Formats: sequence, structure tokens, C-alpha cells
Amino acid sequence: MSYQLYYSSGACSMAVHIVLEELGAPTRLMPLRIHDGDTSKPGYLAINPKGRVPALAIPGEAGVLTELPAILTFLAESHDTPALLPPTALQRGRVQEWLAWLAGWMHGTGYGLIWRPHRFSADPDDVPALREQGLKVVAQANQDVTERLAQPGPWALGDQYSVVDPFLLVLFRWGSLVGLDMSEHTAWIEHTRCMLQRPAVNRVLEREEVTIPL
Amino acid sequence: MSYQLYYSSGACSMAVHIVLEELGAPTRLMPLRIHDGDTSKPGYLAINPKGRVPALAIPGEAGVLTELPAILTFLAESHDTPALLPPTALQRGRVQEWLAWLAGWMHGTGYGLIWRPHRFSADPDDVPALREQGLKVVAQANQDVTERLAQPGPWALGDQYSVVDPFLLVLFRWGSLVGLDMSEHTAWIEHTRCMLQRPAVNRVLEREEVTIPL
Ligand SMILES: N[C@@H](CCC(=O)N[C@@H](CS)C(=O)NCC(=O)O)C(=O)O
Ligand SMILES: N[C@@H](CCC(=O)N[C@@H](CS)C(=O)NCC(=O)O)C(=O)O
Repeated sequence: MSYQLYYSSGACSMAVHIVLEELGAPTRLMPLRIHDGDTSKPGYLAINPKGRVPALAIPGEAGVLTELPAILTFLAESHDTPALLPPTALQRGRVQEWLAWLAGWMHGTGYGLIWRPHRFSADPDDVPALREQGLKVVAQANQDVTERLAQPGPWALGDQYSVVDPFLLVLFRWGSLVGLDMSEHTAWIEHTRCMLQRPAVNRVLEREEVTIPL
Repeated sequence: MSYQLYYSSGACSMAVHIVLEELGAPTRLMPLRIHDGDTSKPGYLAINPKGRVPALAIPGEAGVLTELPAILTFLAESHDTPALLPPTALQRGRVQEWLAWLAGWMHGTGYGLIWRPHRFSADPDDVPALREQGLKVVAQANQDVTERLAQPGPWALGDQYSVVDPFLLVLFRWGSLVGLDMSEHTAWIEHTRCMLQRPAVNRVLEREEVTIPL
């Protein structure tokens, strides 16, 4: 009995992949290629009508679990060692606050505008302005992430490693991918260095054939 | 010692207001008026730099808690009667899945495009196409919500009332506000009727001076 993770190399699903690896949870990997349109093909839409990754099939459960914040929280709650969620309701509230903002605003609006402008306007003439605005949103969000990681780090929650951190690694990499200068984000670079010292993280990067520009 | 809820009448913060009322949690209400620009005034930005509601001040905690999914989860975890979160990790994962999708996609992208088009493009000429796309996103999301409420209801999680349901009440009302025909959404109308039978819900509607078009 193992989970099945639907993912695409380097996508936000990589955060789930890292968490599964940290937890040592038995997993069958189900690779898709977003760039080849795999997430919109009928076979995948029958599994996940939202046409996105990540999606997690759970033994005994009808219907995959979707939405990154939900999958991360579910996995951390189901496997309590190592603890990837903090002990108090308030600290877990801070985890959800990070995840909602990163997934809903920074990824959904910022990177959505850059990579999927047609989701926001049906007029192809609007694409340049949408992309430009997406870059502005991401650049500001990068600043905000860096400031919060600086007080005090190294992790999103200070000294407690949590499910937020693998998502931050994905987003750090995306910053360079869209051409933003990440070299000024000292506290986030430090965070990334800490991530790269974790064996589970390195195994996943190798398996997804992804490198982190540092 | 009581919470302080920063809210604006009828905004998504109303879901938090309902949950506080359901829990009987001592709360000081801090009203703002979005339409008068209160959320962007220096006084409020000093409290919540994101310039949005809801924000919850928590006794003993520096810095308000933001993001609707985070506040709802924190409150339900901190007060276990009545139980507004289900008992298993998987069911709680389904709660987070609902919240991430409603907050990130339906509210953040759909209603964001309709009500805050300038967040997505700096070009004022793009506004009509952005609004039109927002209405499409919301209309489709309304269908999706209704389908999921129908299998089986009355609540988002079936027979368990949870923190998702007050957010659905807010979103039902917004459907009519933006001029969409909600009369075909039978299962969602039924959900709204069930909500309106709850004393806590009625107390909040009265206090925020909000009516639900049914
Ligand atoms: N709200 C979803 C968003 C997931 C999402 O947009 N994933 C991207 C990859 S990072 C995707 O699947 N894109 C495929 C597409 O847009 O066709 C979540 O948090 O899981
Ligand atoms: N991601 C935030 C979004 C909150 C949000 O956008 N709230 C709206 C009211 S429903 C707001 O404060 N708007 C004020 C503004 O845009 O100036 C959350 O889930 O709490």
C-alpha cells in the first residue's frame, strides 16, 4: 500500500516529493510533463479534473487529494516522525498562513500571470502587461520572503523545519527561472544552502533531474 | 483576554466572524470599511502590512495572524467544542483542499479579477477583459461548488459542519452581488438554507448588517 504522487519535474509538486522522502513514506511516482501538455490530457483529467499537479492518490480513498497546502498538511499530520508541523495550534496557524500566501498569491497570482496569462484574460494583446505585472508581484514577494526568513532563520518558522521549507526551495529556483536576480536575497540563499544539506532533498533533486542555481 | 478581529462588513472576514460566534470565543470587533479605503490606510498597514481583512490579533502573540484558511484552522484547533474540524488527517486534508481552492482560486483569481483588476495588469485598457475572465472563473467555480455540495450534503464535508461552510455562505452571497444567477444552484441554495438555521450565523448577519439573497 503506497501513495501515488502525480508530479512534473521542478513544479510545485516537488515540495510534496521532498516531504514524502523526508517522511520515508512508500510512494509510487507518477511522472507527467507539464511542457508536453500532460496535465490537460483526458487520461489525467479523469484522475484530477483540475488538470494540475500535485495530486496524491491515497490507499483506500476515492479521488486524489489536490492543492499543495492540503497535501503537505495531510502528509505531516499522518506521519508524525520526523515532525514537519510544529506542536501548537498557533505555530500551525503560521504554517497555514505561509502556505496560503505562497500558494494563493505568490504562485497563483504572481507565477500564474507569468506562465499562464491566458487564465487571467482571453485577450492575447493583454499578455505583455499581465507578464510584467506577474514579475512585479513575484519580485515584491521575493523581498517579503527574504525579510521574513531573516527574522530569525534559518527556516520559515525559525528553528523548526516544516512543510513550508520545501515549497520555499521550489520558489527560490523559480525566481532565477523567470530571470529575477536572486543574489541579493541573502537570507533566502542561506535557507537554500540549509535545504541542500538535507539528504532527502538531494535524493529528490537527483530523481527529478533538477538543479538549484546558487 | 480576547481576540481582536479586523473585518469589513460582508467581506471574506465574515467567515471568521461566524466561526468566532459558533465557538463562543471572546472577541473584540475592529470594523474597517473596504469601500472607504480603510484597509490601505497607514494605521491599518502598521497592523497588517498586507492591507487585507481578515486579520486576527491573538493575546500574547506579536503580529496579527492573516490569511483566511490559516485563521479558520487556528481557531478550530484552539477550541475543540463545537468541533469545526473533522477528526481524521484525511478529512482535515479535505478541509484544507476546499479552503486552498476557495481562497486561492475562486476568491484570489475569480473575484480578484472582478473587483481588483489592477492587481493583475497595470494597463487600464485591460480592465474589461480581466473582469469578463473573472466572471467566467467564478461562474465555473459556482458550478463546481454546487456539484460537490450535491454529493452528499448538506455541508462541504457531507454530514459534518466545518469551517469551510461559513466561507461558502460568503461566496454564495457574492455570486448575486456580481450579477450571476444563483437560482440554478440547488444544492448550494440548500446549503445556504441550512446555514440560515444556525443562531450564530444569524447573529453575525445582523451585526454586520448583511442579508443573503435567496
Ligand atoms: N492551487 C494548486 C496549483 C497547482 C498548480 O498550478 N500546479 C502547476 C505546476 S507548479 C500545474 O500543474 N500547472 C499545469 C498547468 O497549468 O497546465 C496547488 O496549490 O496545488
Ligand atoms: N488571501 C487573503 C485575501 C483576503 C482579501 O483579499 N480580503 C479582501 C476582502 S474579502 C480585502 O481585504 N480586500 C481589501 C482590498 O483589496 O483593499 C485571505 O485569504 O485572507
